[in-house]
Amino acid sequence: MTKPIIGFIGLGIMGKPMARNLMKAGYSLVVHNRSRPSVDEMAKEGARTANNPQAVAAEADVLITMLPDSPDVESVYTGAQGVFMGARPGTLLIDMSSISPVVARRLAAEAETKSLDMLDAPVSGGEVGAINATLSIMIGGKASAVERAMPIFQAIGKNIVHVGDAGAGQVTKAANQVVVGLTIAAVSEALVLATKAGVDPAKVRQALLGGFAQSRILDAHGQKMLDRNFRPGFSIRLHEKDLSIALATGKEYGAPLMLTAIVQQMMNAMKVTGRGELDHSGLVTLIEELAEAQVGNRGER
Amino acid sequence: MTKPIIGFIGLGIMGKPMARNLMKAGYSLVVHNRSRPSVDEMAKEGARTANNPQAVAAEADVLITMLPDSPDVESVYTGAQGVFMGARPGTLLIDMSSISPVVARRLAAEAETKSLDMLDAPVSGGEVGAINATLSIMIGGKASAVERAMPIFQAIGKNIVHVGDAGAGQVTKAANQVVVGLTIAAVSEALVLATKAGVDPAKVRQALLGGFAQSRILDAHGQKMLDRNFRPGFSIRLHEKDLSIALATGKEYGAPLMLTAIVQQMMNAMKVTGRGELDHSGLVTLIEELAEAQVGNRGER
Repeated sequence: MTKPIIGFIGLGIMGKPMARNLMKAGYSLVVHNRSRPSVDEMAKEGARTANNPQAVAAEADVLITMLPDSPDVESVYTGAQGVFMGARPGTLLIDMSSISPVVARRLAAEAETKSLDMLDAPVSGGEVGAINATLSIMIGGKASAVERAMPIFQAIGKNIVHVGDAGAGQVTKAANQVVVGLTIAAVSEALVLATKAGVDPAKVRQALLGGFAQSRILDAHGQKMLDRNFRPGFSIRLHEKDLSIALATGKEYGAPLMLTAIVQQMMNAMKVTGRGELDHSGLVTLIEELAEAQVGNRGER
Repeated sequence: MTKPIIGFIGLGIMGKPMARNLMKAGYSLVVHNRSRPSVDEMAKEGARTANNPQAVAAEADVLITMLPDSPDVESVYTGAQGVFMGARPGTLLIDMSSISPVVARRLAAEAETKSLDMLDAPVSGGEVGAINATLSIMIGGKASAVERAMPIFQAIGKNIVHVGDAGAGQVTKAANQVVVGLTIAAVSEALVLATKAGVDPAKVRQALLGGFAQSRILDAHGQKMLDRNFRPGFSIRLHEKDLSIALATGKEYGAPLMLTAIVQQMMNAMKVTGRGELDHSGLVTLIEELAEAQVGNRGER
């Protein structure tokens, strides 16, 4: 069986390494990106190029999008030269962007009316996961479409979970970002408390890892806080976007999320004070500011 | 070398099994408790008894207290028939209650003026950990005193960490309860969001365990939420107490803890509505109430 031709739209920090891994796995790619340099780069590496989403879709058996936010995805699919204009019936559409579940469900419904299969399949694992093909992939859509997409997912990710029907991938991603964001805030408050109370936060982190406070965030992001290493990783700006999606989703479906709202506002405060490009573990600096403390400097006032 | 005689004050849900494990390890115990039945029970099992803290201290080489809250510990040590009245110089005092670090430091300072070694050594792991001798123990105090206490700690716990000077154990415990409480709230918001958005929260939990959202709380307490099993474990009432200690500590040492304050108020809301004896994973029921949802019932309004 010959491999399907993959259309790939969105060659950013995440999209480019994902597209590369698909080429490494032997797939032929047709790519498109709003800005030109990434397209040229991929062309040199052997990808074909197309001038707009419609043209990509016309050549693809499977089409993948990896875009910044809901409006980008909407316009790429439903615009005048959009995916829906070019895709032949039977084409499999996979949106791997992190967007609103409400938009994901609307697009999936529209795809169905055109006899197109569509999956929402947002990822976590960041740039490192994209480069190393170890992304976690959370999938919403029909089982038959997931089965069809599985070899492709396996070329770019590792922890691949089919959660439910259309939109379920995006809901899971939103839930993931809620837990990650609030756990970062929890670790921040705990380490600032320890520091201000004159106790070594490194030892507190170590002690807490042995009990019910254990988390990957306490382990990895707690260490980044201690090291004052706020290079992303995953930025405050993008996490704020994801929490805004979670809040909008909660509003749409009737789930008030009080702590999520506060952490979203904290991240927004960091954005407006020029810290949006810090790693999300940098949230600790906002908590420190409130306390005029710095994790690692004991008992300083 | 003969084993030291251990005085043990406070034979509650935690203290009694801890005292039993010390007797199993071959220590002679002198015990005291405010209410009589636990004392009689321990006497039957071979412990000596004494009528007040002073009398316990007079007979002990090492004295352990395991009491509900800061005022109990203060009065047991500094009261008219208190530990400080009975203890001979050189006696090792170990308070294993979870109390205010401020009080712990004050008592340690007073002990030092009387040539008594004192450690604060609060635990986590709950009743199960106390029974199975698998408690995590977080210790503040002098290294020489910790060394002296180590065989005793090893008879009742497993993950034993000397964090720093006097009070450091209590600060670590407070930090632990902040992280655990806020992570429970995070998992609650995420699972309620998933449920209201029509996605199976069990599958969301499973997907999230594979990535950065992983935590022991998501694993254990997330499962309890799905099972609607809110038998403690560790009660909302006690966790609210511990978060109040964290907030008071933050106030004393200058660390504002905004999310901790909200979760403490959420737990307080549960206490005043008759849910203080639920397991702390039952916090999800408060979030559900806001959303008129129940984890496990998809999309219900």
